[in-house]
Amino acid sequence: MGPHPAVAEIRRAVRLSLADVPQGALVLAACSGGSDSLALAACLGFVAPRQGLRAGLLTVDHGLQQGSYERAQEVVRLAAKLGLAPAEAVTVTVGKAGGPEAAARDARYEALSLAAKRSGATAVLLGHTRDDQAETVLLRLARGSGTRSLSGMPATSGLYRRPLLGVGRETARAACEALGLVPWDDPHNIDSMYARVRVRHDVLPVLEQALGPGVTEALARTAALCRDDADALDDWADEVYAGSRGLGVELTVTALRDLPAAVRRRVIQRAALAAGANASALAAVHIEQVDRLITEWRGQRMVELPGGVGVVRRYGTLIFASTLS
Amino acid sequence: MGPHPAVAEIRRAVRLSLADVPQGALVLAACSGGSDSLALAACLGFVAPRQGLRAGLLTVDHGLQQGSYERAQEVVRLAAKLGLAPAEAVTVTVGKAGGPEAAARDARYEALSLAAKRSGATAVLLGHTRDDQAETVLLRLARGSGTRSLSGMPATSGLYRRPLLGVGRETARAACEALGLVPWDDPHNIDSMYARVRVRHDVLPVLEQALGPGVTEALARTAALCRDDADALDDWADEVYAGSRGLGVELTVTALRDLPAAVRRRVIQRAALAAGANASALAAVHIEQVDRLITEWRGQRMVELPGGVGVVRRYGTLIFASTLS
Repeated sequence: MGPHPAVAEIRRAVRLSLADVPQGALVLAACSGGSDSLALAACLGFVAPRQGLRAGLLTVDHGLQQGSYERAQEVVRLAAKLGLAPAEAVTVTVGKAGGPEAAARDARYEALSLAAKRSGATAVLLGHTRDDQAETVLLRLARGSGTRSLSGMPATSGLYRRPLLGVGRETARAACEALGLVPWDDPHNIDSMYARVRVRHDVLPVLEQALGPGVTEALARTAALCRDDADALDDWADEVYAGSRGLGVELTVTALRDLPAAVRRRVIQRAALAAGANASALAAVHIEQVDRLITEWRGQRMVELPGGVGVVRRYGTLIFASTLS
Repeated sequence: MGPHPAVAEIRRAVRLSLADVPQGALVLAACSGGSDSLALAACLGFVAPRQGLRAGLLTVDHGLQQGSYERAQEVVRLAAKLGLAPAEAVTVTVGKAGGPEAAARDARYEALSLAAKRSGATAVLLGHTRDDQAETVLLRLARGSGTRSLSGMPATSGLYRRPLLGVGRETARAACEALGLVPWDDPHNIDSMYARVRVRHDVLPVLEQALGPGVTEALARTAALCRDDADALDDWADEVYAGSRGLGVELTVTALRDLPAAVRRRVIQRAALAAGANASALAAVHIEQVDRLITEWRGQRMVELPGGVGVVRRYGTLIFASTLS
């Protein structure tokens, strides 16, 4: 008798995700003890030795809930049973910047990156599922910030890999059950102070009811398509940007004028960031204003961008320069 | 005292939308008698003569509800008071194809196009608002079909223009009230057999509650950004397609191999349709299969596309040809 179908599906996803990792490398599973990352860790413990890889585990103690230290230690003890060594619990201090979810996430990724470097790991696997991806798309949708934003979480980003982006949350739960693993239910996952929890428990069920089953899959597919589209447009913009730059941060108007708006705006964004504009404060409205120096030129004055960058048009060239000095 | 702000906003939107229409041309408002299209018609009646245009009205009797004939006649009588002439009620027969919403829409657009041609109109204005656009994006999202689909309804498409895509439904309602117009409330607008009605009444309020106010605006902004992105990628694909075609419908593999996936897939789609594939049955999974003839070539057999089109790879060329004969 083969493994349970849910276990088989997750092992396959892990195997595919690790196909390009060189023999003998160390791969770590980031595991909270919740069902997604627990199933991931267990399957990594099975798959890694069969692919000639070493497998370990990292768990993060955010110090935000009572008993979080003990739970982290429990996850580390479980790692040994799953064939994962080294296993380490890292403790982080969560700040306030960007709200509770963003602060916890920033602290977690920083700690994971440091721990991975210390142990010489080649990859860190994250347990985000298709359901997490669908929730991310809905959260991003509410920002109205376009294709890149709608593309959700990438399957690979530097050290990190997300093998389960095509796997449903229910599959992870079923795999834990089949493997006799008891996942930890994070109380934050039902705390409606978090936007993600509201999306999960309030929005998605209503969407399914209104639009029919398969909404989660459709959202995940949307993310994948949007990522490809955003990648292609970024390629195009990179090429134009490389070809239209002068000395300093300048753009030649003739090189941009006849481009589609989507590409022109991406090129402007590149120039703005290269000139030192503040990435998180730079909004569509600023890019639009610069764009009008190209498309609706009637002698406008300097456009000011957040971060102390000014843009002027002189003799057919847009000049991006610091206004601080 | 100037006009009510809601009236001013809609007049401005109509004015902008008609900026490029030549003097003396006839512009028609498509008006159901509901608040959106009623406000639109009233504002067209005001704006058109001031821009040297003639303005008329069309209303469609779908024959689906009791009293629809009388209501259409009422809208036509109202047109005269709004300064709209000619005004015409066109009767349509709604089929079954594609479900009740699609069938009614198809019949409506066909009748509008015919009536517009008969009267020599240059443009037909539709009353879709920002709220309609947001609903469209959510409906499309559930299909998981990518950037073009998420771009919602275009502001201009052939004869049709949608001046109110940036205007809220509440503004249209307020404009009607300010102008002393009593809009007709279509009972279909609260009939939850329609997916759009479920999105409007069930999904959007829950989304607003979960993600904060401004979701409608964000969805409409998403649509606009996705449209620009889809347009740019279509431009790119058109150019590659034109440059990679051989005799008949063929694509040169070397011309496609190094393109971003988003562009390659669009080029494949163009070739498939040119070879006679069935547009509505051609799905992402088919395009993927053809794509693998380029990216994962290991001597695959013919890929069959809906509509009786087969694709084979021969000596570095993809050949799209009919399998029916």
